[in-house]
Amino acid sequence: MKIDILTLFPNMFNGVLGESILKRAQEKEKVSFRVVNFREYADNKHQKVDDYPYGGGAGMVLMPQPIFDAVEDLTKQTESKPKVILLCPQGKRFNQQKAEELAKEEHLIFICGHYEGYDERIREHLSTEEISIGDFVLTGGELAAMVISDSVVRLLPGVLGNEDSPVQDSHSTGLLEHPHYTRPANFRGMSVPEVLLSGNHRHIEEWREKESFRRTIKRRPDLLENYQLSPKQEKWLEEFKIDEE
Amino acid sequence: MKIDILTLFPNMFNGVLGESILKRAQEKEKVSFRVVNFREYADNKHQKVDDYPYGGGAGMVLMPQPIFDAVEDLTKQTESKPKVILLCPQGKRFNQQKAEELAKEEHLIFICGHYEGYDERIREHLSTEEISIGDFVLTGGELAAMVISDSVVRLLPGVLGNEDSPVQDSHSTGLLEHPHYTRPANFRGMSVPEVLLSGNHRHIEEWREKESFRRTIKRRPDLLENYQLSPKQEKWLEEFKIDEE
Repeated sequence: MKIDILTLFPNMFNGVLGESILKRAQEKEKVSFRVVNFREYADNKHQKVDDYPYGGGAGMVLMPQPIFDAVEDLTKQTESKPKVILLCPQGKRFNQQKAEELAKEEHLIFICGHYEGYDERIREHLSTEEISIGDFVLTGGELAAMVISDSVVRLLPGVLGNEDSPVQDSHSTGLLEHPHYTRPANFRGMSVPEVLLSGNHRHIEEWREKESFRRTIKRRPDLLENYQLSPKQEKWLEEFKIDEE
Repeated sequence: MKIDILTLFPNMFNGVLGESILKRAQEKEKVSFRVVNFREYADNKHQKVDDYPYGGGAGMVLMPQPIFDAVEDLTKQTESKPKVILLCPQGKRFNQQKAEELAKEEHLIFICGHYEGYDERIREHLSTEEISIGDFVLTGGELAAMVISDSVVRLLPGVLGNEDSPVQDSHSTGLLEHPHYTRPANFRGMSVPEVLLSGNHRHIEEWREKESFRRTIKRRPDLLENYQLSPKQEKWLEEFKIDEE
């Protein structure tokens, strides 16, 4: 996979692309990143990339020319047709399903605005989709591009070794994870539940299923909206209700 | 504000903390960051920070000792009582309201797991809250800590200069932003809407309100669930329906 990132702050990416999974995925040649300062594509003397908004108002707006030219140049360099993703608060909310969808692509181009708005023509005629990572305001699209890159790249075949596989990924099973415990069995008077030390695998499995279900009910009941409860889960639900009374 | 980040990958933070708003906020002494490798607090010979889960299963679990000791050490160094935030997929969903709430704190400590699960005792007895930035799987909590830091720090008084103030922040007004346009008025045959070139400020304002409303209806109708429509908006809603037929 190729991932190109258009930004005015290329140095922001140094730490994240040079560590952990994103670093290893590059070393294994599962992904290659190009971080491009689109200011280099500005065709005016002062390498200006933004200007005042038509119609007045505060703030600056990113001009179409540098970003159109940068995307076209990066697209020309590969045969694959890229997804051109605009990071912005009005975009479609990113989730695990979208990560899985993007992991099937060959070439992603992220456009990161910073402070400024985007000229609407970039939105309408250049980007193939707009993504937001959540209902909060960030200074720019850079962190969103890193978040999406991390969640997509770790899904590419051969990137995660066995040693990295999470105990169990939340958001990929439909329920939240059950609690985990490790050594010591007693830490400052706080103990590990007996069942986990029992060696009885059937009981351990049952405890984990129940606690996973309990945590989901308590914290994210919305995840169960389209979920078919098993008879066991129905019974647990009654138990939890009694416990609360 | 003080922000402490506990991580096994401190270098991930180099780029993001050294650029843009987070850099400037530190230069203006509005915030100070400490990025701490909690491996340094491990009290065992090999500086081990994780171990196998009790009860068996794949993956590793972060041990309580290094993280408890690190948080206690960092807490001792300041008088303020910190919020201790565990980044994890089971946490409460981060949003702009939570950013505003955290911006009032004096001291935040972020605990970033990486691949592994957390020992449940960290969750129950050490962290004061658990936050998730969305329903997707990341390799670790580091990117989430950066996202939350960015959105919180930019709200601190004196951090954003006028030059940085976004044209209008989505998610802080209840509606999505209207489209923006800047020079040139005609770019490769794609034109700026006439009204924005008209100089008629009343018309421009009205066009912007309408387009902001149209975009919200189209992309994020959920934002309007608890929203009281004005008579003008009711009228526009009828217009949009006719346009679609």
